[in-house]
Amino acid sequence: MTTDPPSPHVVLLAGGVGGARLADGLARALPPDHLTVVVNTGDDFRHLGLTICPDLDTVTYMLAGVNNDETGWGRVGESWRALDEAARLGGPDWFRLGDLDLATHLARSHWLAEGETLTAVTRRLWAGFGAGFGAGPVVLPMSDAPAPTLIETDTGDVLPFQIWFVRERWQPAVRRVVLPEDARATAAVIRALEAADVVIIAPSNPFVSIDPILNAYPIRALIEDVPQAVVAVSPIIAGQALKGPAAKMMAELGLAASAAAVAGYYGHLIDGFVYDQQDAGMTAEDGLALLCTDTIMRGATGRERLAREVLAFAGEMLD
Amino acid sequence: MTTDPPSPHVVLLAGGVGGARLADGLARALPPDHLTVVVNTGDDFRHLGLTICPDLDTVTYMLAGVNNDETGWGRVGESWRALDEAARLGGPDWFRLGDLDLATHLARSHWLAEGETLTAVTRRLWAGFGAGFGAGPVVLPMSDAPAPTLIETDTGDVLPFQIWFVRERWQPAVRRVVLPEDARATAAVIRALEAADVVIIAPSNPFVSIDPILNAYPIRALIEDVPQAVVAVSPIIAGQALKGPAAKMMAELGLAASAAAVAGYYGHLIDGFVYDQQDAGMTAEDGLALLCTDTIMRGATGRERLAREVLAFAGEMLD
Repeated sequence: MTTDPPSPHVVLLAGGVGGARLADGLARALPPDHLTVVVNTGDDFRHLGLTICPDLDTVTYMLAGVNNDETGWGRVGESWRALDEAARLGGPDWFRLGDLDLATHLARSHWLAEGETLTAVTRRLWAGFGAGFGAGPVVLPMSDAPAPTLIETDTGDVLPFQIWFVRERWQPAVRRVVLPEDARATAAVIRALEAADVVIIAPSNPFVSIDPILNAYPIRALIEDVPQAVVAVSPIIAGQALKGPAAKMMAELGLAASAAAVAGYYGHLIDGFVYDQQDAGMTAEDGLALLCTDTIMRGATGRERLAREVLAFAGEMLD
Repeated sequence: MTTDPPSPHVVLLAGGVGGARLADGLARALPPDHLTVVVNTGDDFRHLGLTICPDLDTVTYMLAGVNNDETGWGRVGESWRALDEAARLGGPDWFRLGDLDLATHLARSHWLAEGETLTAVTRRLWAGFGAGFGAGPVVLPMSDAPAPTLIETDTGDVLPFQIWFVRERWQPAVRRVVLPEDARATAAVIRALEAADVVIIAPSNPFVSIDPILNAYPIRALIEDVPQAVVAVSPIIAGQALKGPAAKMMAELGLAASAAAVAGYYGHLIDGFVYDQQDAGMTAEDGLALLCTDTIMRGATGRERLAREVLAFAGEMLD
């Protein structure tokens, strides 16, 4: 008689859309209390008086099933009365905040002003969307204190991330990504990593989604030093990012825009690398396990399929 | 041949609904650049991350013709998607912020965060509503720095104004209104008062709408010492306030709930007092000019009628 192996405890490091999609797939493939999603907060910012956490919201909306799948950000069934009127009054509207999305930022800003941590606020929001700890995956901000990512462009300007990413549509060429020296992971993140059997790095931007998480002390050290299986999924397919500036940034930072270059960038941090079938034949350093598959997550079925393949791949490393 | 007398320069001290209605009447009766409305900011507060200025907005919405005349606050044609969703997520919804109204608070909070003064922000909003300095009355906050009014209740609790007024529906009995010792009028308010021929005190709550304005140094001294005609309009009609807690507060503060008591409360600050025909026969201290008329402002016609009567009454004092 054979039995299924016990499900591993998984920590997913996630940025925005790619992270949210793999989080949803993993949530479908794992028991509810076996998945912790650690989310980049480096692109959080204050805007229109509110504290906005784009990656946390993209992940939460996806897991709660209220996300807009067409845009990849924001909520489905959204309306724009408040922001359009603010623009008519002369206010800025380059960051598109819908009426339903605003509710998240209003509630978050309220609780933060009352002294709650971002971790507690994220749990409250998650509960408000009908789930909660124990009833679904745990979604954690990498840090409770702001840890803003800055973009130094090739003209020497240093821009807050969202100014570069959204207002300037990530067009200014990047010379350097500037991460804060004092970023600290939360106790909840540290506990989750210490208890993890598998760490998965989502197909998110390595420089502005994953590096900010690794930069929050002591996340990189915990992942380097402990015996989990660490698997990254390539955000680059056939030299392009499915969405966002990853490929453009690689070229600007002097790297090849390829899956292999992503694997090389993560280096000894990872034990396994998942790349797309369009890049079949990719080679990597000795000792790095490779999985070549269809990494494009089409719908819930596609998200769960990739998650199960990644989990099986990581599971082999645990044996 | 006779000529009309030149229009006086008028400063109106205004709280919320009553102040907004008389402001609108005066705007209809005076040349555009002859009216300055100095608005109470004592009930401003931060809520859901935003800076909210209820009296400024009530006055601005009325003058811009976008106010909700049924409720007396907020905007006509309002919707509630953001706030209802925030409430569903567990956030507070006792202060009703509609989607259009939110636009004002979002734009204001944005500009304040950029370092602009509340005076400049109010001008920007006013311009956004299609008017502007020189093209309509000037609307000024009494102060640029926060000058919050607190309510000490008969149980000894000291509540922020909006907690008492809106969340607790002004039910806790008032022992004392606590005004800040360091409230300062803006330079624009001081200039307007120095240039005024007539100062009108709107039919607003004397304790929580007008006193906070008079408390902002040096407004009271400017009104006491300079030779304008100062006229107050009674907010009390037949022992009742048309709206709000004025009559209830008068009883709790040991005053009679009557127009005469309001006149007595303003004392030597005022030269004239306008009270309602329902209180016909009211007597006052020697030297106080009295005007008995219909003080209920029904629609735009009623607002302009009362404004013209008050202006004529004040005009007699200027001769």
